[in-house]
Amino acid sequence: MNPAKGNWRIVLASRPKGKIVPDNFRLESVAQPVAAQLQEGEVLVRNVYLSLDPYMRGRMSAAKSYAEPQALDQTMVGETAGVVLASRFAGLEAGDHVVGRLGWADMGVVAGNALRRVDAEKIPLSAYLGMVGMPGVTAWYGVNTILDAQPGQTLVVSAAAGAVGSVVGQLAKRKGCRVVGIAGGAQKCRYVIDALGFDDCIDYRQSETLAQLQASLHAAVPDGIDLLFENVGSQIFDASLGCLNPHAKIALCGMVAAYSGGAAALVNAGKLLTMRATLQGFIITEHLSVWPQALGELAELVEAGQLHCHETIAHGLAAAPGALIGMLQGQNLGKQLVRL
Amino acid sequence: MNPAKGNWRIVLASRPKGKIVPDNFRLESVAQPVAAQLQEGEVLVRNVYLSLDPYMRGRMSAAKSYAEPQALDQTMVGETAGVVLASRFAGLEAGDHVVGRLGWADMGVVAGNALRRVDAEKIPLSAYLGMVGMPGVTAWYGVNTILDAQPGQTLVVSAAAGAVGSVVGQLAKRKGCRVVGIAGGAQKCRYVIDALGFDDCIDYRQSETLAQLQASLHAAVPDGIDLLFENVGSQIFDASLGCLNPHAKIALCGMVAAYSGGAAALVNAGKLLTMRATLQGFIITEHLSVWPQALGELAELVEAGQLHCHETIAHGLAAAPGALIGMLQGQNLGKQLVRL
Repeated sequence: MNPAKGNWRIVLASRPKGKIVPDNFRLESVAQPVAAQLQEGEVLVRNVYLSLDPYMRGRMSAAKSYAEPQALDQTMVGETAGVVLASRFAGLEAGDHVVGRLGWADMGVVAGNALRRVDAEKIPLSAYLGMVGMPGVTAWYGVNTILDAQPGQTLVVSAAAGAVGSVVGQLAKRKGCRVVGIAGGAQKCRYVIDALGFDDCIDYRQSETLAQLQASLHAAVPDGIDLLFENVGSQIFDASLGCLNPHAKIALCGMVAAYSGGAAALVNAGKLLTMRATLQGFIITEHLSVWPQALGELAELVEAGQLHCHETIAHGLAAAPGALIGMLQGQNLGKQLVRL
Repeated sequence: MNPAKGNWRIVLASRPKGKIVPDNFRLESVAQPVAAQLQEGEVLVRNVYLSLDPYMRGRMSAAKSYAEPQALDQTMVGETAGVVLASRFAGLEAGDHVVGRLGWADMGVVAGNALRRVDAEKIPLSAYLGMVGMPGVTAWYGVNTILDAQPGQTLVVSAAAGAVGSVVGQLAKRKGCRVVGIAGGAQKCRYVIDALGFDDCIDYRQSETLAQLQASLHAAVPDGIDLLFENVGSQIFDASLGCLNPHAKIALCGMVAAYSGGAAALVNAGKLLTMRATLQGFIITEHLSVWPQALGELAELVEAGQLHCHETIAHGLAAAPGALIGMLQGQNLGKQLVRL
């Protein structure tokens, strides 16, 4: 898969049975859009970065979920950051940097009002797909609205080294919480503590059983968990449930472990009752009203150098399927992107 | 165990290992309180009814939960309704009917301000332990506050023939909901539909597997579940999770199935995320501010004959352990009481 120059895209060739495999995708050449043929209100954009996000795994299945399944033989959906090549939309002109949902393609034509113009001088363009994009707003909403983090509370976040988890922990630290991450592998745990400033981080790969994981987590949160931002589900979620404090709040953001068809069996579910927990599952695209405030605050923090997130960057459109597969296996550190 | 006349009580003799057995209890004779020895503010009460409630199973274990464990060798705790024999408390006099927490004993001396005076002429005394007592307020709070039931919504309640479930369904019907119960056995299901007016009721005993139960429930709620009042946990909860609609609300009131040590493994937990559900575990004694309003509304409905709940009554203090064991196995219909 070494596409020659032109306009290439990746489509969903088949729905995965269990884990995703490269054959679920197909790289194909499509006609190159011509600026002269733009309709009124349309914009021609060249993508610079594709965002890879865990929710994409769910969309690849036909199962009923919060969004329509990704259509077969259509361009893989996803957020993108790029440059305007030509515009017949009043608010945008050639050279502008924009964020949109053009999907896994070199370029595309979209309605101008579906694009968000961004300032790539103050903040790197890629950050608009991470800290100052959907993952950042997801973290912001969970910490501020669902969990309403308060000084002195203990917050646990899973997938702590990921695009969302990284921001969750840093925002909660700024609120005065004690923050403990859960991540896979010693390198990620070191990164979370040393680079992001979490108080502690548990390597779930060091535990083989739920009991071991729960004991390991309990040692890191001896006073229990007040706030839980859950990105993973399954045994990791279960261990956290086992450490909940009375009136704990849970922001349920991801069940990555269940996306591949594995059932997220929870043996500590009884704690939801005995600890009188409040849990809210959420999808950030259903809370559009908070985006302007959240993006504004996140942009300020990034510009001031007070919010960080590592980026793992794959190069070239053809690398996208492998990068998505790797990300779902936890091979990335921080935000996973594809640079075109 | 046929106690002679006098003052008898039942204490917790040992903590159950798994299911409760009669040997976990001990009936013993204690000194009879003397009216002449009452201190200022104290009241001597003869119990007429003991309330048996599922939460008692949890208290019998030493495990950390929302309340202190029942102490060994002490009178079994629990709500009671009775008659004042003597009073040195300003608001009460001999002959008054009162509800309190005297536990499993023929009589007792308590502070007058720990008693609630009730009118046993308008409403039967026993109802103050059920529809117009803790079970009723639990149902009221779940339906009105946590679930905020609205006309046209579909509400499912488990343990539908029980003291809480009965009231949940009737209150939700009054709010204009379509109400479907889950109960054990054909008799209970008929009662729930015919006597309480639910729209439908599923007999979970007809299903051997989760898949069968979920299919059976799905047939009764073809448009899915908007509101879930969960009293049971385990596979019954799991089946309901599998039928949730987007933005479903869940009032988590009981996990009876887990009280005996069995883990409440949930394979449909992922629905909490994909359906963006909100779940709240609650204990009604933590929401005292709603009690006056709730009790007032419930009393009006009962007095007007618009709220019903069957009572299963065991006779004599010595029958209490067996009645509790039977109730936890689902042998009761409606509110389980002991008449002394």
